[in-house]
Amino acid sequence: MSVSGNLMDFLDEPFPDVGTYEDFHTIDWLREKSRDTDRHRKITSKSKESVWEFIKGLLDAWSGWVVMLLIGLLAGTLAGVIDLAVDWMTDLKEGICLSAFWYSHEQCCWTSTETTFEDRDKCPLWQKWSELLVNQSEGASAYILNYLLYILWALLFAFLAVSLVRVFAPYACGSGIPEIKTILSGFIIRGYLGKWTLLIKTVTLVLVVSSGLSLGKEGPLVHVACCCGNFFSSLFSKYSKNEGKRREVLSAAAAAGVSVAFGAPIGGVLFSLEEVSYYFPLKTLWRSFFAALVAAFTLRSINPFGNSRLVLFYVEYHTPWRRKTTKLGKYPVLEVIVVTAITAIIAYPNPYTRQSTSELISELFNDCGALESSQLCDYINDPNMTRPVDDIPDRPAGRGVYTAMWQLALALIFKIVITIFTFGMKIPSGLFIPSMAVGAMAGRMVGIGVEQLAYHHHDWIIFRNWCRPGADCVTPGLYAMVGAAACLGGVTRMTVSLVVIMFELTGGLEYIVPLMAAAVTSKWVADAFGKEGIYEAHIHLNGYPFLDVKDEFTHRTLATDVMRPRRGEPPLSVLTQDSMTVEDVETLIKETDYNGFPVVVSRDSERLIGFAQRRELILAIKNARQRQEGIVSNSIMYFTEEPPELPANSPQPLKLRRVLNLSPFTVTDHTPMETVVDIFRKLGLRQCLVTRSGRLLGIITKKDVLRHMAQMANQDPESIMFN
Amino acid sequence: MSVSGNLMDFLDEPFPDVGTYEDFHTIDWLREKSRDTDRHRKITSKSKESVWEFIKGLLDAWSGWVVMLLIGLLAGTLAGVIDLAVDWMTDLKEGICLSAFWYSHEQCCWTSTETTFEDRDKCPLWQKWSELLVNQSEGASAYILNYLLYILWALLFAFLAVSLVRVFAPYACGSGIPEIKTILSGFIIRGYLGKWTLLIKTVTLVLVVSSGLSLGKEGPLVHVACCCGNFFSSLFSKYSKNEGKRREVLSAAAAAGVSVAFGAPIGGVLFSLEEVSYYFPLKTLWRSFFAALVAAFTLRSINPFGNSRLVLFYVEYHTPWRRKTTKLGKYPVLEVIVVTAITAIIAYPNPYTRQSTSELISELFNDCGALESSQLCDYINDPNMTRPVDDIPDRPAGRGVYTAMWQLALALIFKIVITIFTFGMKIPSGLFIPSMAVGAMAGRMVGIGVEQLAYHHHDWIIFRNWCRPGADCVTPGLYAMVGAAACLGGVTRMTVSLVVIMFELTGGLEYIVPLMAAAVTSKWVADAFGKEGIYEAHIHLNGYPFLDVKDEFTHRTLATDVMRPRRGEPPLSVLTQDSMTVEDVETLIKETDYNGFPVVVSRDSERLIGFAQRRELILAIKNARQRQEGIVSNSIMYFTEEPPELPANSPQPLKLRRVLNLSPFTVTDHTPMETVVDIFRKLGLRQCLVTRSGRLLGIITKKDVLRHMAQMANQDPESIMFN
Repeated sequence: MSVSGNLMDFLDEPFPDVGTYEDFHTIDWLREKSRDTDRHRKITSKSKESVWEFIKGLLDAWSGWVVMLLIGLLAGTLAGVIDLAVDWMTDLKEGICLSAFWYSHEQCCWTSTETTFEDRDKCPLWQKWSELLVNQSEGASAYILNYLLYILWALLFAFLAVSLVRVFAPYACGSGIPEIKTILSGFIIRGYLGKWTLLIKTVTLVLVVSSGLSLGKEGPLVHVACCCGNFFSSLFSKYSKNEGKRREVLSAAAAAGVSVAFGAPIGGVLFSLEEVSYYFPLKTLWRSFFAALVAAFTLRSINPFGNSRLVLFYVEYHTPWRRKTTKLGKYPVLEVIVVTAITAIIAYPNPYTRQSTSELISELFNDCGALESSQLCDYINDPNMTRPVDDIPDRPAGRGVYTAMWQLALALIFKIVITIFTFGMKIPSGLFIPSMAVGAMAGRMVGIGVEQLAYHHHDWIIFRNWCRPGADCVTPGLYAMVGAAACLGGVTRMTVSLVVIMFELTGGLEYIVPLMAAAVTSKWVADAFGKEGIYEAHIHLNGYPFLDVKDEFTHRTLATDVMRPRRGEPPLSVLTQDSMTVEDVETLIKETDYNGFPVVVSRDSERLIGFAQRRELILAIKNARQRQEGIVSNSIMYFTEEPPELPANSPQPLKLRRVLNLSPFTVTDHTPMETVVDIFRKLGLRQCLVTRSGRLLGIITKKDVLRHMAQMANQDPESIMFN
Repeated sequence: MSVSGNLMDFLDEPFPDVGTYEDFHTIDWLREKSRDTDRHRKITSKSKESVWEFIKGLLDAWSGWVVMLLIGLLAGTLAGVIDLAVDWMTDLKEGICLSAFWYSHEQCCWTSTETTFEDRDKCPLWQKWSELLVNQSEGASAYILNYLLYILWALLFAFLAVSLVRVFAPYACGSGIPEIKTILSGFIIRGYLGKWTLLIKTVTLVLVVSSGLSLGKEGPLVHVACCCGNFFSSLFSKYSKNEGKRREVLSAAAAAGVSVAFGAPIGGVLFSLEEVSYYFPLKTLWRSFFAALVAAFTLRSINPFGNSRLVLFYVEYHTPWRRKTTKLGKYPVLEVIVVTAITAIIAYPNPYTRQSTSELISELFNDCGALESSQLCDYINDPNMTRPVDDIPDRPAGRGVYTAMWQLALALIFKIVITIFTFGMKIPSGLFIPSMAVGAMAGRMVGIGVEQLAYHHHDWIIFRNWCRPGADCVTPGLYAMVGAAACLGGVTRMTVSLVVIMFELTGGLEYIVPLMAAAVTSKWVADAFGKEGIYEAHIHLNGYPFLDVKDEFTHRTLATDVMRPRRGEPPLSVLTQDSMTVEDVETLIKETDYNGFPVVVSRDSERLIGFAQRRELILAIKNARQRQEGIVSNSIMYFTEEPPELPANSPQPLKLRRVLNLSPFTVTDHTPMETVVDIFRKLGLRQCLVTRSGRLLGIITKKDVLRHMAQMANQDPESIMFN
């Protein structure tokens, strides 16, 4: 008896592997949280025993901050390296530096002694391909050669990228934001944040951005930062062994990612809070803040141009692939090659599509000073003007502006079309920069239109009061900025984080009111077409089990309408507390694929006493059969404290109280589904048992909840207007 | 039988007054939410009946945005009016405008033709009291007369303020933030956000700020904005009848309050999110954003100086009264008079305490240009200096700077001491500006010290690499800004919202990294002394039932340790589903003061079927006794669908299923308290029933949870280090 007692004590120890989850399963937040509390309590009580344990305890408490520091450092470094590499490879498409081939155009001409910017751009050390190969820098043949090489380089980069993704890390494609959102909500996708994905995504990101495709690097950078977060959290047992705690680190890593993507640390924290995260306690807010700070600081230290503003317009974003059924989609490499070829061929002749999208946005946001050489600033100056340089009144547009308008209009159409196609490809791609570019182009065009209208018709009522002749009353650059914010807001439905990112990007604190107005308006307009932002839409398309915090559930259904078994279905598979044999349970496990089983007093009374996880049951039985003497197929399994009274010759019973969760979540059958949805969301449950007067009636899982919500939304699509 | 059937149907209608809460009670968030869903469903289904109902439905859906618009407009207007009035009354302490007595000093001299600022300040239309009364503007007697009148005006304003608060609106005192936090967490304090409080707080706020006391107007402005929010939500039944929905409006109103207090709309939203709110869904985030936008816009339109920067330094904040036991505290009017007198007497001679605190902060933040006339900028210039005006190298300090250092040191000590006393008084008072001023003074002094050290010892290792002679390497103004942020962060423990507010205030986007570092450091240091910010400390002192989201509960207790009845206590008062008489229940209600009673199948089985609220039971019985025939003291009360089978001559039974909550929240006795705390926090429960295998064991209320948390925290104060 004492031997079996010892064995039972041994079994009361946790089994190896208990507590991890299977791939494509949802974690149980409450359970993870209570596991962390146990660990924490152990450390706290141990820390009183010796100085060494005390120090270990302190180290454990501070490990969160250490992880944040490491994430910030690595994410900042990677972003800096990517920036430098993109810079070099983008210029490689046009030419090469003779003094050192690893210099970009700007670095190559850095030491040039020419005084004007235009002359400096043409420094002798930097050779266009036509100059190098056929020794011609002007003329039709040089143009065609440069054009061809531009296309070839672009195709090479794109081909390399798509091949690397295909062969080594399929998870590296797309922006990754929708998946990260899903992972943060508690879903497990093994390898999505792995080291391999980190490496390949970083390399291919450089390739695709350099190839000139209409995509951004910001979404992918968030994915890269989250991979860093996952890597560092695997170094600390506090995070590696607890899926809930790990997600706190990932939330902060997402903030660090946005921080380096836009040079916007505050915007990053808010983006993580508003858009990506699921469970975001204040502690995570502070840690995210710290990680974002370190990351921004690291990037700024690396930034080779020493100009913090330069970082600001290296911006772009996430692109979920939205087609799943096109024919081209079956040949991802061919698809990438075709889209890249089309992009390169059409983009080269138009200055607004040839330059990098971030440069384009920067130019569109710019106000026209008196010395500005951009085509967009080709206004007709009044020769008698005596105003200071920085207060220029509205002027009539010159020929350059009219040319620019046509080119912008064409670029706008091209950008909209090609971006839609680019989004779905199997390469890392972001949506942020392309949508900002579309908005900025439209905004700038409207701005110039209004400006000219105001100049030529300043007696119209709308202009009369504030737009006297000679006043500077319309700033087309501001229209571009507001347009970019509005377009981005419409696509992602961000509000607060959008405005913060925009003004961290532009430094335009005084434009906060128009930016906020644009964000609110675009959200209203876009919501009228449907409540889902692009990430939610993508999550939906991919069928991830994501319980959106934003959806409100307002239907009149009760728990009893959703729980299984439905009427007519076979009864719920349950375990009894002390009357089933090991074999019974093994059969039940084999025949069903449920995640777990409720345990009741007996089949007659059906009073619920707890819940046992499938995985833990399997492990416990396997362990017992291997290591514990006397456990055979017809041993009785019991979940009570004391073994049941058994006939004299019956085999050794198996105690399984250890795997029994004594506090399963229950609701009554009369509970409104609204409340149930709330509970699932806020407590992060996997399943919930339904009882009436203490009697077990059924079970509701997260998937049942999601299915029911989708059903209800389909039944009553009108209700969206009243939310 | 049919008559009684009708009567029962009649009773199935909701009773009047059901659903409101008593003063100083906590609301049930889940219940409020489900009531709102019912209302919403009714409107949605009605809206399909006719066009008119459809329009009504749409109006209802948009009423949230309308309320936000109204709050923004009123809060912005009030803040603008307060700013103007404070401006005038502050100047009134020193003199009066002859052309129009309602002009402030600046407005009075607005049209003056003098060219320098100093001369313009002395325009003839503005008369100091000594000039007006004894026709002397200089000399000892003029100084003394001005001094006396300054003190008299200050005393008059303070006396008026404290009397108004005492007589008309005791709730108008203090900053109001701790109480608003408590209200937002679900507590009811009737009249705290009433119209009377709104009026008196607005008026007295002007008085106390003008009196020159060491307090700020920002916290009280948040209270004022919340009063506006409460007023407007009482106009729409959607909000006035639902305490949960009302709190969503109040969260947004708090954001609008901070928005106008600091001219920082984004900071306002984040402050509401990070510091004040309890339940803050994304929908509220968007609405807050809108309200904050409208409020900032309104204030900017009113701002009579047409300079948005001017608004920026009218900043200050919340002051909870922290003493409750001093002798002076028993005589609030006397206390105010004494503190005001001391403040005025000591403040007048020192220029840094005489000027308004916001002007002081503004001056401390300022960098010294070449043309700056401030005493703080009295550096010894190199006559051979040829640098442009805005790039001045570090210079040795002149006499003015040394004088300023002494005056600043004295002002710092005075400010720290007097602010502590001012905080507890029974007048509207804020903490923000005084703590920023303390931090800014200390920061500026450190900055000047480092600057002089760097100038005189530029060969020291720490200065050698980046501080060559003739370089501008230390900016004392930046030290002041960082000091202000750090001090404020230490007092309130804000992080993200603090940084956003600071850079919205100063426009210093490039200083985001030092500001973030200051916020993180001050939080770490302050947390080492104790985890509570000033609002939480105040809530604690006042004993409000506030369940802080920030506290983590990591103790190993179970629900069974906390639930009542404890061992040895009389059993739980329960109702049975169909065996108690009206009289039994009335006795039970009379003898206990519980908020409600669990309903069980029978005393033997103790299986739980629901929960009945005390208030609703009382109303239901009263109604039935008055209006329903045959209900007498020994009528059986039943909660089941069908009446129980009764002996033939028994009186008419009373059906009370209507008041039975069929989905009470339950946990098992083995549930860790950690999970229970989480459930209370996230779902906003008032109480939770404890069961084992469906049998009712006890009850846990919010107060039990709070008491238990306090107990645990006292037992193990060390654990704070490991959190």
